[in-house]
Amino acid sequence: MPKPIDFYFDFSSPYAYLMARDLTHLAQRHSRELNWHPILLGVVFKQTGRTPPIDGSTRGQYLRHDIERTARRKGLKFQWPAAFPFNSVAAVRAFYAIQQQSTKRAVHFAQALLDCMFLDGLALDDELIISLAERFDIDRAGLTEQLSDPTLKALAKTQVDAAIERGVFGSPMVFVGDEPFWGNDRLDDIAHWLEADGF
Amino acid sequence: MPKPIDFYFDFSSPYAYLMARDLTHLAQRHSRELNWHPILLGVVFKQTGRTPPIDGSTRGQYLRHDIERTARRKGLKFQWPAAFPFNSVAAVRAFYAIQQQSTKRAVHFAQALLDCMFLDGLALDDELIISLAERFDIDRAGLTEQLSDPTLKALAKTQVDAAIERGVFGSPMVFVGDEPFWGNDRLDDIAHWLEADGF
Repeated sequence: MPKPIDFYFDFSSPYAYLMARDLTHLAQRHSRELNWHPILLGVVFKQTGRTPPIDGSTRGQYLRHDIERTARRKGLKFQWPAAFPFNSVAAVRAFYAIQQQSTKRAVHFAQALLDCMFLDGLALDDELIISLAERFDIDRAGLTEQLSDPTLKALAKTQVDAAIERGVFGSPMVFVGDEPFWGNDRLDDIAHWLEADGF
Repeated sequence: MPKPIDFYFDFSSPYAYLMARDLTHLAQRHSRELNWHPILLGVVFKQTGRTPPIDGSTRGQYLRHDIERTARRKGLKFQWPAAFPFNSVAAVRAFYAIQQQSTKRAVHFAQALLDCMFLDGLALDDELIISLAERFDIDRAGLTEQLSDPTLKALAKTQVDAAIERGVFGSPMVFVGDEPFWGNDRLDDIAHWLEADGF
């Protein structure tokens, strides 16, 4: 049984948007299970004393430029969301709420939500999350209630804590079995790793 | 006249070692001038409030792993220098001292010094710098004197300040004309940029 691929990402991470489709295709080509794990990078940064990389610094400006350039190279439409950076906690809770019903639907929801923000340039808010979930046949009233449900908050927290415990410190991060890869720019390394079964 | 390629790096940067040869070959394939600019990342970090990335954190440990894995993928021998991290200020001064005599010899010296540290695993110290420079026909006594010469210190500082002014915030960083690329993992993007004359 080949090892699954684990995809850790923050919904507010442009590089996660840039990576998600290619990683999905790569996993399919290699018949590997791909598990999506949305996390909250803010929690990770708080624990490690780091700050979000896409800020007003020279480095932050470079990263914005690199993101747009990477999208062009991939032939992938890219827009900055109307509000950026933004808090993705409601999106994470929605993902795990939907996953309780169906992992497949949760993954479709996650890809569609990344597209809403970084392809269409929409601002993330509860209405966007809930109306998008409705498109995937998730009950509006039920999801609205779940988003403020302490049980679901605790579940999302458990997932983020487990990611940190595993060694996740950025977004996107991918594990092939136990092998960690950080960043959209490691896609080619992941492909080579899958082909060669390690290197 | 095609635009030159500028290679900014800190002598203590493993990713600079991993990138240097490939970048040299890439520039040669495209008949582009490649200018080497050793800098002091410590000065950059001081100005930006950042800290060296390869520390004891989870992220630092990942970077160490990624460096060794990247070297394996490239088929490039890699060893951690006997002392790491280390201060590369004497190496930077030596480079600019040698460059006053010959840019070509300074570049040969720089590649050889990266090899001494990251291929042979030697610790950087003044004796290593001076004996290596001697192999490139640089006068030992003259260089020793120059390393503590205020004029040379000022020249090295000017070069580092100019790099920061241009937008250098990490190592390695490459400019193709005005286009910045950060990291060994942008080699493929640089190659594509050279082939397509931008994208």
